[in-house]
Amino acid sequence: MTTKIRIGIAGYGNLGRGVESALAQNGDMELVGVFTRREPGQLKLLGNAPVLHIDDIGQYQGKIDVLILCGGSKNDLPEQGPALAALFNTVDSFDTHAKVPEYFEAVNQSAEPAGNTAIISVGWDPGLFSLNRLFGEAVLPEGATYTFWGKGLSQGHSDAVRRVPGVKAGVQYTLPVPEAVERVRNGELPQLSTREKHKRECFVVLQEGADAAAVEQAIVTMPDYFADYDTTVNFLDEETLRRDHEAMPHGGFVIRSGTTGQGNTQVVEYSLKLQSNPEFTASVLVAYARAAHRLNQMGQAGAKSVLDVPPGLLSPKSAAQLRKELL
Amino acid sequence: MTTKIRIGIAGYGNLGRGVESALAQNGDMELVGVFTRREPGQLKLLGNAPVLHIDDIGQYQGKIDVLILCGGSKNDLPEQGPALAALFNTVDSFDTHAKVPEYFEAVNQSAEPAGNTAIISVGWDPGLFSLNRLFGEAVLPEGATYTFWGKGLSQGHSDAVRRVPGVKAGVQYTLPVPEAVERVRNGELPQLSTREKHKRECFVVLQEGADAAAVEQAIVTMPDYFADYDTTVNFLDEETLRRDHEAMPHGGFVIRSGTTGQGNTQVVEYSLKLQSNPEFTASVLVAYARAAHRLNQMGQAGAKSVLDVPPGLLSPKSAAQLRKELL
Repeated sequence: MTTKIRIGIAGYGNLGRGVESALAQNGDMELVGVFTRREPGQLKLLGNAPVLHIDDIGQYQGKIDVLILCGGSKNDLPEQGPALAALFNTVDSFDTHAKVPEYFEAVNQSAEPAGNTAIISVGWDPGLFSLNRLFGEAVLPEGATYTFWGKGLSQGHSDAVRRVPGVKAGVQYTLPVPEAVERVRNGELPQLSTREKHKRECFVVLQEGADAAAVEQAIVTMPDYFADYDTTVNFLDEETLRRDHEAMPHGGFVIRSGTTGQGNTQVVEYSLKLQSNPEFTASVLVAYARAAHRLNQMGQAGAKSVLDVPPGLLSPKSAAQLRKELL
Repeated sequence: MTTKIRIGIAGYGNLGRGVESALAQNGDMELVGVFTRREPGQLKLLGNAPVLHIDDIGQYQGKIDVLILCGGSKNDLPEQGPALAALFNTVDSFDTHAKVPEYFEAVNQSAEPAGNTAIISVGWDPGLFSLNRLFGEAVLPEGATYTFWGKGLSQGHSDAVRRVPGVKAGVQYTLPVPEAVERVRNGELPQLSTREKHKRECFVVLQEGADAAAVEQAIVTMPDYFADYDTTVNFLDEETLRRDHEAMPHGGFVIRSGTTGQGNTQVVEYSLKLQSNPEFTASVLVAYARAAHRLNQMGQAGAKSVLDVPPGLLSPKSAAQLRKELL
């Protein structure tokens, strides 16, 4: 019997819970423990793994093959990523696109001397979408790449809506504009403005006595978040919000359209339709945790991204079995 | 100035011509020569590279970084693949799925001792579709993978049509059944028979005096090729065939549908819509030729498949640039 890959989870929000679920679907892995900043006794897991305080994580060196970091990109990972990559092989979903290069450097400087492998920015965007942008431009160098998101719940934009005075609760969905997607799929290579690519739809519960028109105006004119988009604001009561808008669906498309030879149009499309965004991201993290373990066994230490990982390492199957079944 | 990657093409049919076109789109590569079994003087290239006889290829060792093999999987590659991987780094589009394992072994046994890197079965199926089948099952272990082909011209089935007595000329298109694709996209995980997944459409020019009904009957009942499908046969004249059916479009979908957590459905789809099948396959070959060169420089000799290649190696850009632009 081969031994299982021993996994730790650092941080137990939606993503950490998703990782716990995903591990149960992967028979070659086992969950050693969940590490939290909260009082461990207060955490209720889906399964039976021990819950431990993050301050005690150092004692688990040598007992965990890969630690999956499930904290947020804004406050948690910039600190935890480099700190924990000094102790463990890690996988994380750092998704502040503009800060990826400096985060990569920071993680690398701590992982490499420790002989650990740290795969950063894993998930679907960044992650699987990044891979598809890469394949698209490498295979069709003369063309254009389009990324559309949605229909999906956007955490950042929902937070922005909830900060508007007079808003008690609310969520925001990002939607691709169907006409724009159609033009891209047809290989038209359109130039598209921000407004032409996506629209935004808000569902808002007002505080008692709040002025609906003023709230709507404050949302649709909010710079950076809504002003550049066609935004609709729907008002509803709290029960309806809870009933109809608790799920966290998301998805999107990466489309590469290019020409080859004497003007032949070639269109490549990758699309995701997700009923649970955090569970899907977690599933990607778990597959890359397997790859991190193997890369480390092969002596490949330091920071990596999905662009560096041979795809076969994601699968529990052997290279020979994969060739036989999938080529 | 960095030196260009020196490429050779072995075989100059539709695929070889596609590689020649694709190389013109990749500024970091140059075409050293085209090698053919025909009389070199009779070959008319799109560009100005020299045409050489395949028997003289041994003289080009050290002058070519990667040789792209553009022969057929049935007769050419089983012999050329191992023979040429002893002399050069190679990339090929070997696509006889059932024989991939033995072909891999044969190429490996010749490439590895020679210190050459040989990437086999490159293209879109096998190739990019294989990668997507891999990502699908690795990320969503509880689910099912569906591959649909078309609408596209099938060379093997067109040949079968042309072998029917009474047929002067003809082509065959494979088409996915839209209802089946829709059910898979909806995450229904249907069990689909061969007939339910694809249908076949033939366009046939009859020989003078041939019996249309007999030809149609011979086609639709042909075992292996047509009997298991709903097949339509259309008759047309030779000019119409030439005018409307000369292009080589193809495409298809790989769809992975799975569940995570407490039954959330997640659907991943990869699709291609190609106006020129051979030109697209050629474009994939050229990107993997870049990777073969780099893997060899990194000391990774032997046979490889797309499943073994870190995706970043396909791009002319540096790893740091890719992280900045694509993550």
